[in-house]
Amino acid sequence: MDLPELNYRHVVNGEKLVIAIAQDYKTEEVLMVAYMNRDAFEKTIETGKAHYWSTSRNQLWFKGESSGHVQEVKEIFTDCDQDALLLKVKQVGAACHQGYYSCFYREIQNNGQKLEIVKEKVFAPEKVYGE
Amino acid sequence: MDLPELNYRHVVNGEKLVIAIAQDYKTEEVLMVAYMNRDAFEKTIETGKAHYWSTSRNQLWFKGESSGHVQEVKEIFTDCDQDALLLKVKQVGAACHQGYYSCFYREIQNNGQKLEIVKEKVFAPEKVYGE
Repeated sequence: MDLPELNYRHVVNGEKLVIAIAQDYKTEEVLMVAYMNRDAFEKTIETGKAHYWSTSRNQLWFKGESSGHVQEVKEIFTDCDQDALLLKVKQVGAACHQGYYSCFYREIQNNGQKLEIVKEKVFAPEKVYGE
Repeated sequence: MDLPELNYRHVVNGEKLVIAIAQDYKTEEVLMVAYMNRDAFEKTIETGKAHYWSTSRNQLWFKGESSGHVQEVKEIFTDCDQDALLLKVKQVGAACHQGYYSCFYREIQNNGQKLEIVKEKVFAPEKVYGE
């Protein structure tokens, strides 16, 4: 597949990666950040659904494969040095495996003294992923 | 300084880092993504202005130090596994050294076949950074 050349300069366990940010295409809420290797980028373009590279499992990660919480990709942008992607997505269910719509559900408050949950849970993780 | 413990799991040239995304606090436009080490995070909290770790120069990077295009930090969020931060900022000038308000000024179009500039330049880089 003839893809734009990205700068896969982020290396984790020998895998060459770009940073990929997912943002809700309507509300503009930032949902999560992960990595993609070239294969994940290609699969994302091919299928229209976000694929990442899991640096913990060292394998291709089709987001929502087990939970059904897939991300339908509406637009993809790249940054000035082409080592990062911004995906505008329609999020099915929720992005975060902890049950929140966005992974960024905690705010650092009081000059760094306090970590506060500022979002509502939208699903119970144990019902989606098992106990 | 007593900061929340983040997971500085992204290692570049031996430096332990978290990913840091900057987002316009009003329009929610994603401006850029970079890294922070613990020192950059602490300086960001202390000063209220975004500091990153430059992985190309291997040094602390006070965003806007030379250009004046600083980021006043309004809110900071952290994600589920605490290896990434989301900063909601008031961007002075523009975030991108290429002259665009956001670094994500190019869209990947036509199933990955085309890379198109979709934003307007807001300043001339050579006037800010020199030729």
